[in-house]
Order: sequence, then structure tokens, then C-alpha cells
Amino acid sequence: MVGVREKGKARRKRQIIQAAKHLLATGGIDALSTRRLAEEAELSVHTLYALVGSKEQILEAVMADNHERVLEDLLKIDEHHAIEKLFAIVESTYAIIAEDSAAQKPIMRMLMTRYYEGNLNPIPWWQMAQEKGWIESAIAEATVQGQLRGMFPPAQIADMLMKIYLSNLRDYLFDQTTLANFRNATHFEFWFCLSGLAVETQRDAFLAKAMDAASLLQQTAPE
Amino acid sequence: MVGVREKGKARRKRQIIQAAKHLLATGGIDALSTRRLAEEAELSVHTLYALVGSKEQILEAVMADNHERVLEDLLKIDEHHAIEKLFAIVESTYAIIAEDSAAQKPIMRMLMTRYYEGNLNPIPWWQMAQEKGWIESAIAEATVQGQLRGMFPPAQIADMLMKIYLSNLRDYLFDQTTLANFRNATHFEFWFCLSGLAVETQRDAFLAKAMDAASLLQQTAPE
Repeated sequence: MVGVREKGKARRKRQIIQAAKHLLATGGIDALSTRRLAEEAELSVHTLYALVGSKEQILEAVMADNHERVLEDLLKIDEHHAIEKLFAIVESTYAIIAEDSAAQKPIMRMLMTRYYEGNLNPIPWWQMAQEKGWIESAIAEATVQGQLRGMFPPAQIADMLMKIYLSNLRDYLFDQTTLANFRNATHFEFWFCLSGLAVETQRDAFLAKAMDAASLLQQTAPE
Repeated sequence: MVGVREKGKARRKRQIIQAAKHLLATGGIDALSTRRLAEEAELSVHTLYALVGSKEQILEAVMADNHERVLEDLLKIDEHHAIEKLFAIVESTYAIIAEDSAAQKPIMRMLMTRYYEGNLNPIPWWQMAQEKGWIESAIAEATVQGQLRGMFPPAQIADMLMKIYLSNLRDYLFDQTTLANFRNATHFEFWFCLSGLAVETQRDAFLAKAMDAASLLQQTAPE
């Protein structure tokens, strides 16, 4: 049983995350000071520190919140539909950004830069490693379920899909492409890779999905 | 006919590029000042400016030099071996870095960061677009030569391969992986994608290449 005190704590943490997103949406990373956040969340600076800690930890709390949403979406998928899980990760990321791109874009952009510069703190880093783990498990499950051939280690396939997903996300975050194109390019490239891995009886169906995704991508591609 | 004056100019430009690489190798981007470069290349600051211009343009000259080497390697490939051209781009990049990683790493790292932040100057940007064009042409040629099926636009396949190539290169540049792993991961992922695209009679051969590359990658993968 969750006590009254824990419920209040969770509610206040939610308040802080909402307030942090509001500040991020209006002024980017620079607008997020502990003092302004306390004002926005209608809490004392003391309470704010006790609940989430430094500015850095507040940013991590926003990312952890995103991460939990992706996980919730994943858990909704029937365990017998492993392939759908891969697309749930993409859809969930798309939905989180589409809902509040003004707040999500600056924080994800910062995260992506740090990730590649090797300066990412343990928490978001651990979350990204976990997303790759979800992809790997989905590939392994789809192999056991007889949809994919098991000629390559699932970790290597997951690694490739993760690179594709992050590459497309980065292209969106750094204004090289639109959010629709992040989704369409990832759909096409995921289906393309899966069709190369599909068992004989599934190949045509997967290829048809890749071709549909390619047409959609053609329509939304920049230039 | 190339005149004596042009020959001298080309020789001095080569001297400057060598000197710039030496400074980059010893002290990174910060060590590259116009004054120090003039000293190193045994030229007056005036001559240096006349030949290549600002520090920014010197960095571009180093990248243009790399670009020409990749192009030279590509031109050596028989035009009937389109698939080999894709791997020549990877091999050429690998060789350029392996030969002088201390100089190449800081400049490529800076270039990669600017590329994703959308602050890349026209010249290196144009070169990267050209590399993508080479990949696209190779895919289109291999399709005409009857090795690949033409069910997807070559531009979309080229886009995916370019993302894979840059993703692996970036992982190396930002110390996430080794240079050997940049090459092995790109080999595996290129062969994997090509096997999904191969005509029926070629599929098994391409798949065998992908499996060889996967074993090699398994051996060099970090962790």
C-alpha cells in the first residue's frame, strides 16, 4: 500500500516535471534555474532540492519520465507480437515529442550531444542502454516465435536498429528533418532490415511493409 | 599543361596541409593558429593567406584532401563492380584515419559536431553530400548490373547506408568504439542491408559475406 506521504511526494514530483517542461518550452535549457523552477512549481527551493536535487537531476527526472512512458507503451503490447514492440518504441518516442516538442527538443538535444561526447551521466545513459536491451529482446523473441531467422546475434541486429533510430532522431533534433520524417525513415529502415531477417514465409509480408513505408517516406522526405 | 607557377602553388599547398596535420596531431584544433602554421610550413603569413586563407579554410583544405583520396580510391574500382565501390568508401576512410589518427580525429570530430548542429560550411557539407551521391550511384549501378533488386529508390537505400557509415564513424571519433570496430560494424551492416536487397541468385553469397563480417565484429566488439 502506498502511504499518503508517498502519494504527496509523487504528486509534487509530477508538478516539478510539468513546471520544468514549461520552462524548457519557453526558454530552453538556460531558462531552467532551480529558483525559477521552484516559483513555477509553487514549492520552496528547499522542497525542490529534497525531491529532485540539482538542475542536472531535474533534467534527468524529465528523461526518466519519458523513459517510463516508453516502457508503459511497450508493456501494453501482447508478448506474442515481438515485432510490434520495436515499432512501439518508435511510436512512443514520436508521441512524447509530438505532444510537447518545445520542451522535449532542447532536453533531448542536450542529451544526444552529451551521449556522443561521452559526457552522459549514469541515469540517462543507463536508460538508453535499456532501450537497446528492449530491442535486443524483441529480436530474440521474434526469432523464437519463428518470424525471424536466427543467423545473426540479436545484439548485433539491435545495435544496428538502435543506430538507425538514434540517427533519425538526431536528424530531427538538429533540424535536419521533420518529426514525421523521423518516424517514416525509421519505419522504412526497420521494416527493410526485418525483411532481410524474415523467415521465408514472412518475407513477402515484411517486404510489403517496407515498400509501404518507403512510399510514405518518399512523400515526406525533405527537398 | 600545368605551368611552373601552378606546380609551385600545388607544392606549397601540400606543404601547408602537412604542416596543419602536424599541428593538429600535437595539440588538436587549438594548436592550429595561422602564425604557428606559417612557421611550421616555412612560409610567410602573407603567402599562407594567399594560398589557403583563414584557419577555417585550412581545416577545409585538409578535409578536401581527404575527400580527394576517397575519390581516387573509388576511381580505381572497375566500373562493373558497383558493390565494391561502397566498401571502397569505408576502406578509404579507414586508411586515412589509420595513417594519421592523431591529426584526423580532432578535425573529423569537429566536422561531425558541426554537421549535426547544422553549422557546417558549404565546402565540407558539399563533400559529404557528394559521398552520399557516390553511394546512391553505386546502388543504382548494381541494380542495372542485375545484382540488386530495384524495389526501393536508390536514394532511400543510400540514405540508410550513409547513416550507418556516419553513425559508426561518429562512435569511433567520440571514443565509443575502436577504429577496427568502425570498419567491422560498417562491413557487417552494409552486407546485411545488401543481402536484403540482393537478387535471388546473389542472396546466399551476400548473406555469407554478412555472416563473415558478423563473426569478425563479434571478435572486436567492445565489452
